Amino acid sequence: MLTLRDPIHGFIRADRLEAALIDSRPIQRLRHVHQLGLTSLVFPGAEHSRFSHALGAMELAGRVYDALAAKGGGLLPPRRTARERRLVRLAALFHDAGHAPFSHSAEELFEEGLDHEAMGGRVLGTAGVREVFARHADETAPAPEEVAELLAAGGGAAGAGAEDGTADEASAVAPASASPPADRAPVQRLLAQIVSGELDVDKMDYLLRDSLYCGVRYGNFDLDRLVDTLVPLADPETGAWGIGVEAGGVHAVEALVMARYYMFTQVYFNPVGKALELHLNEWLEETGRRWPADPGAFLEIDDVTVWAALRASDSAHARAVVGRRHYPLAFETAEHLSADERAAFARLLAELRERFGHDLLVSHSAKDPHRMGASRVLVRHGDGRLEPMARASHFMRHLGRIDRYRVYAPPARRDEVARAIRERWAG
Amino acid sequence: MLTLRDPIHGFIRADRLEAALIDSRPIQRLRHVHQLGLTSLVFPGAEHSRFSHALGAMELAGRVYDALAAKGGGLLPPRRTARERRLVRLAALFHDAGHAPFSHSAEELFEEGLDHEAMGGRVLGTAGVREVFARHADETAPAPEEVAELLAAGGGAAGAGAEDGTADEASAVAPASASPPADRAPVQRLLAQIVSGELDVDKMDYLLRDSLYCGVRYGNFDLDRLVDTLVPLADPETGAWGIGVEAGGVHAVEALVMARYYMFTQVYFNPVGKALELHLNEWLEETGRRWPADPGAFLEIDDVTVWAALRASDSAHARAVVGRRHYPLAFETAEHLSADERAAFARLLAELRERFGHDLLVSHSAKDPHRMGASRVLVRHGDGRLEPMARASHFMRHLGRIDRYRVYAPPARRDEVARAIRERWAG
Amino acid sequence: MLTLRDPIHGFIRADRLEAALIDSRPIQRLRHVHQLGLTSLVFPGAEHSRFSHALGAMELAGRVYDALAAKGGGLLPPRRTARERRLVRLAALFHDAGHAPFSHSAEELFEEGLDHEAMGGRVLGTAGVREVFARHADETAPAPEEVAELLAAGGGAAGAGAEDGTADEASAVAPASASPPADRAPVQRLLAQIVSGELDVDKMDYLLRDSLYCGVRYGNFDLDRLVDTLVPLADPETGAWGIGVEAGGVHAVEALVMARYYMFTQVYFNPVGKALELHLNEWLEETGRRWPADPGAFLEIDDVTVWAALRASDSAHARAVVGRRHYPLAFETAEHLSADERAAFARLLAELRERFGHDLLVSHSAKDPHRMGASRVLVRHGDGRLEPMARASHFMRHLGRIDRYRVYAPPARRDEVARAIRERWAG
Amino acid sequence: MLTLRDPIHGFIRADRLEAALIDSRPIQRLRHVHQLGLTSLVFPGAEHSRFSHALGAMELAGRVYDALAAKGGGLLPPRRTARERRLVRLAALFHDAGHAPFSHSAEELFEEGLDHEAMGGRVLGTAGVREVFARHADETAPAPEEVAELLAAGGGAAGAGAEDGTADEASAVAPASASPPADRAPVQRLLAQIVSGELDVDKMDYLLRDSLYCGVRYGNFDLDRLVDTLVPLADPETGAWGIGVEAGGVHAVEALVMARYYMFTQVYFNPVGKALELHLNEWLEETGRRWPADPGAFLEIDDVTVWAALRASDSAHARAVVGRRHYPLAFETAEHLSADERAAFARLLAELRERFGHDLLVSHSAKDPHRMGASRVLVRHGDGRLEPMARASHFMRHLGRIDRYRVYAPPARRDEVARAIRERWAG
Repeated sequence: MLTLRDPIHGFIRADRLEAALIDSRPIQRLRHVHQLGLTSLVFPGAEHSRFSHALGAMELAGRVYDALAAKGGGLLPPRRTARERRLVRLAALFHDAGHAPFSHSAEELFEEGLDHEAMGGRVLGTAGVREVFARHADETAPAPEEVAELLAAGGGAAGAGAEDGTADEASAVAPASASPPADRAPVQRLLAQIVSGELDVDKMDYLLRDSLYCGVRYGNFDLDRLVDTLVPLADPETGAWGIGVEAGGVHAVEALVMARYYMFTQVYFNPVGKALELHLNEWLEETGRRWPADPGAFLEIDDVTVWAALRASDSAHARAVVGRRHYPLAFETAEHLSADERAAFARLLAELRERFGHDLLVSHSAKDPHRMGASRVLVRHGDGRLEPMARASHFMRHLGRIDRYRVYAPPARRDEVARAIRERWAG
Repeated sequence: MLTLRDPIHGFIRADRLEAALIDSRPIQRLRHVHQLGLTSLVFPGAEHSRFSHALGAMELAGRVYDALAAKGGGLLPPRRTARERRLVRLAALFHDAGHAPFSHSAEELFEEGLDHEAMGGRVLGTAGVREVFARHADETAPAPEEVAELLAAGGGAAGAGAEDGTADEASAVAPASASPPADRAPVQRLLAQIVSGELDVDKMDYLLRDSLYCGVRYGNFDLDRLVDTLVPLADPETGAWGIGVEAGGVHAVEALVMARYYMFTQVYFNPVGKALELHLNEWLEETGRRWPADPGAFLEIDDVTVWAALRASDSAHARAVVGRRHYPLAFETAEHLSADERAAFARLLAELRERFGHDLLVSHSAKDPHRMGASRVLVRHGDGRLEPMARASHFMRHLGRIDRYRVYAPPARRDEVARAIRERWAG
Repeated sequence: MLTLRDPIHGFIRADRLEAALIDSRPIQRLRHVHQLGLTSLVFPGAEHSRFSHALGAMELAGRVYDALAAKGGGLLPPRRTARERRLVRLAALFHDAGHAPFSHSAEELFEEGLDHEAMGGRVLGTAGVREVFARHADETAPAPEEVAELLAAGGGAAGAGAEDGTADEASAVAPASASPPADRAPVQRLLAQIVSGELDVDKMDYLLRDSLYCGVRYGNFDLDRLVDTLVPLADPETGAWGIGVEAGGVHAVEALVMARYYMFTQVYFNPVGKALELHLNEWLEETGRRWPADPGAFLEIDDVTVWAALRASDSAHARAVVGRRHYPLAFETAEHLSADERAAFARLLAELRERFGHDLLVSHSAKDPHRMGASRVLVRHGDGRLEPMARASHFMRHLGRIDRYRVYAPPARRDEVARAIRERWAG
Repeated sequence: MLTLRDPIHGFIRADRLEAALIDSRPIQRLRHVHQLGLTSLVFPGAEHSRFSHALGAMELAGRVYDALAAKGGGLLPPRRTARERRLVRLAALFHDAGHAPFSHSAEELFEEGLDHEAMGGRVLGTAGVREVFARHADETAPAPEEVAELLAAGGGAAGAGAEDGTADEASAVAPASASPPADRAPVQRLLAQIVSGELDVDKMDYLLRDSLYCGVRYGNFDLDRLVDTLVPLADPETGAWGIGVEAGGVHAVEALVMARYYMFTQVYFNPVGKALELHLNEWLEETGRRWPADPGAFLEIDDVTVWAALRASDSAHARAVVGRRHYPLAFETAEHLSADERAAFARLLAELRERFGHDLLVSHSAKDPHRMGASRVLVRHGDGRLEPMARASHFMRHLGRIDRYRVYAPPARRDEVARAIRERWAG
């Protein structure tokens, strides 16, 4: 039993297989991938890596599993050594193993059209990792394929794509993630939701962790209360099992949603952090950098290698990042553009690009505050009655989607850009 | 006014000069020097840099100054813009600017016999820094020379050398730091003690900060209470002013001392952390690496450059650090060797070295839990009577000096080394 | 200078006049008035009294004053000994001095149609209090009449009546609190809002304090950030000054509003706490108890005297409170009745009363989550532009008014009552 | 399952028997016995009762039991429903049930020579409590006699008498508590130590709780770490089992000891609190008050009844308590009198009493910082070697026994008394 200290959870304990995997190359690599990319350049305390987040998610996965198992009517075996429990903890440990340097979210930089989830699967298939699994195999130890499968299921089951604190979203609309296949075992679906879903351990851990390290309090919510009220519920319409919540936990979920909302608006979508990220992206593009599709090569790159290259570069964009001399903000839209406004602004941008070309750096920060509706999260009342969360919480549905453009330009052209936009955009 | 978030102090505020200096090369470089060297390989949360510690020390310097000024009978002007106040804040900001990569303490690696304090002074003299001072000069703005002078005074005044969380001490006995020259202005001496002394802001900040990031509670003490009871006191024997404490604060000081004691025994002198540091030292030595005496060149090296070199190296020691495959512990002495025991063990080590040569890695962790006696810290009772802290606290003098050797050896020779020591060492 | 320890604010300091007033009968009496009435019977930790809340409010009043003075363009003098600052601190200290036992809110129990605010004024006029003011009079010490006046102004200025954590509201609609008279000095209005307004120290303190003592986290918000962003703003339409907030503080205000919302729904309007309060009310009524209009007599009664009488009583309602054997809940409406629904349910209740008489205990818990609109709280953007808070926060206006009836009945009739309501009420 | 919120432990859960016992008269009575007697008159936040402490101790008893069972080699069954586990939780719940009003420690006020432990046993034997046990009896439910027996064993096994935060000790020397009888079952002895011993849940809970409510940080220690390192160990000399600690927990135990030491010197033995307690004692004596030996009558008296009587009393001592107008301090000895000094001061006091009679109020605050030696607490090193804690911790034995007299006198005679003492006492 390995015991580690953690600022959020106090102690994190790992069994032998887990300890050996923590020691493996892909997880150790996460020590050199900042959890919040370039955010520590804005919030100095935010120097933490995806490594401690991965440990925290693993720890929480065990806790959430136990809470669900205690109420699950036999759906999940309540033993600490249950195969299902070990599986979900390992999936949580590896859920970010495919992350690019600086937690970079630009999936299009992956070779062969991969994304970080696919890379996570590849990483689990490397010889080093397989060897660790083989060495510690026992009756209830999961195989690496099972872990990869659960992580893949997560993306689909949640209908949401992976949660990513720092990422702008490419598309404003959730993918029409077809209802999950009926033949997927209910247990599998439940386990997948623990790692990736509306009430997953990823969110729970990163909100508390990022909040602490940033020195803000936006991300606080009542973790104990929330976990305590989680319950597996079968959707009466589809029959599918999912993570629901008892009526007494509705406010705890609301607080989680608000915490996430504040962290996005105040930290993850911070205008300075976004500017630095844009310069990083420009530099990545101009140097033609790609995240390798080969997992062995992929594991060689992390923040250290990229930062070393940034420093060595003559590129103005590289110097902007290293010296934190980003383009100033020329314009930002309101925080909650409607779909029409968004489309209109996108058209405006297309025209501006013709005039200003590469002098224009544009960030599009978009995020739904939650997807309780699409994900059909249910609430169970004291009398057994089920109600969709989106209805049980009277204000959650009023939380507007964050959808905002920001336009940056070189100091010399900033005012010109600002004028050009204001002439044609009222907001 | 620049406002930054901080996990320890909530908000940290900087005036224009301070903000510009925070932005300068030497302070920004500290983002890439881990506060606790390799400790994050043992305590995963401890990923923080000297940058946030420098900000925290600056913030605290202002608070301690205000507390002293409020009681100082005119010794220190109580205005927020007082030159003395600005000076002590800047000294705190720069107090670690000369730190080598991984907060490395092996001063002998500096070229030209420099140490990190001397380097701090050089850094303050670089053109970039001087230019910032010049640009923001006003009536109460200190000059860079004054800051350097205060930092230099600190080392002497405190009779202690700089406090360094992770460093083993080269010598077991405090330098016979002659009593401070009588001609040094009392204010200067007081200000110097704020930055470097028994009750300095360096200690206050790093204990709280390291404790939080490590996820331990050893380093907690009652900061508010401590600062509240600080008072400038003139030593009746020497006439020199120093930072003392009101009787109501004795227990707060005891708690600070205990916090420091625990952090050293549990975190800073952790056996795994020490082993990794030994391998790092071996690699530095075998590669003939030196910290440049030229401040411009010095500012180019930090954890990123060293880590990149470590990775690229074929050295067994480099691989030990990068892969955290350190030599196992073969033997450790008791935690509180007497001077005689220490000398005896040193002799034993000399003999062992002949037999085992470079297979022996030895750490010597030594630290006085406090130097309240040597530093003549005073307590003021309600009736005005002064008493040395070393007497006012009835147990502080019983806290034994930490003085412990640890011997590590390659796995294949570990048992042999262990036997060889146990045959001749009883403890 | 008196220094007191406090779980929320660390240290609370009082000057001589303040210390002597803390020592006075009306403030000491608050030690025996539980801050949350009978709530500790539900949340065991909530055993705190109005005394520590009064101290906390005083401390915060100084902090908020300083924040406003620092930005006020000369409106408020920034000295710590300014008469205005001392005045607002004393008003905060006394703001609850007229509270009846168990923080009881049934104003109709006061003789002569008084309410607790009027009683607060009378208490300030007692000989003992006047004597303390006289003994410590100096140049900047306010007179008791000024304190009383400020407290009276508060009620009107805020257009809200006093904030009372545990109180059901008598009326669902805010009184049409006429715009404040133009001849009231802007400073007076600002000071009054510090003690009683949308962003007052009462709320700030009780949310944090009640949250801590109850052992819940609902009431947490970022106090430092909030205070930091407060700013005095003149309403462009009325010219009246009020407490506003900088744009960077909008989310901190949102968090305050959410904290209050959660504390009301989860703690203050807890169904068990409400049931016990109903029994207390019944007992008060059947014994014909009144809160004396004479301040001297009023100061003789507190939780100790009432609890002693409850214990000595044979009344079933008294025994219900003392033994915590309250009537079970027969029915509760939805949490957010519309005005129409509320009226309809009130009609239904009137009919039920004819059938069930005194067997029916009914609580009506109603509270606006905020009155940012009615109170015209303003936000100042970076470019100086002002915007009503109700518009700047895109979701605050969607937070529904809490408006809920609960019906309790004796165990033997509970089912009958429940059926009778369900037959005629769909919700 | 009853779930309660708690400021220290977050959630406290109780099974049906526990919930019913929490609801019983003796435990509910503790709501009206302040945990720290009159201390809230000095530390305003300390308004908590023994009720929440009893709940906290019960919760912790389960946690400590689980930690010991996990390592106990079969000594304790690890099931949550094990009879032994339920027993130790109930003993913790009732460990303070015999406490007099204001947590009063003057055992001589009990009729029939009882003490509060004996009263605790009687209370468990009352019809009401027995009825609750009977109603919820099942296979693993303990009987009330077993709970009483465990509580009685605790006093003896620990060789220490009950821990009492606010009590002065009558005697300076620990009773020569013979080694525990060999025939007492090892399990019984272990369980007894959980409730009363050097590392008991009483201390763990009250240090954290009192510290939080007082608003000080003295009482903080690393609860998680401490519990994590507890282990049942058999004393090689006596064969008796006791609660020991792994080597990694020595510093956590040291921190607990320091926390206790600080809480005694700073809070429990606060000079103002002691003065008020002396007046209370005088009043109790002059009114001939006794704590009834009959448990039914005993349960009728609590802080409310005593406070009501105090208010109604014309006695100067009663008025001193109610109005907090205590005698001023005339003299206090050093904090750590030697046995000789103590005896000498006691002789001096006897003479002073002849001259000043009842005008002299004397407090004698005495406490060993720990009894690790007498209680033979053991440490287990990594290699299995056992070592007494008193040896493993190199400074614990240097922590001096607190032993201090304070003399108070009426304002008019204070100087006279002070002079009379100073003439004959150097310290």
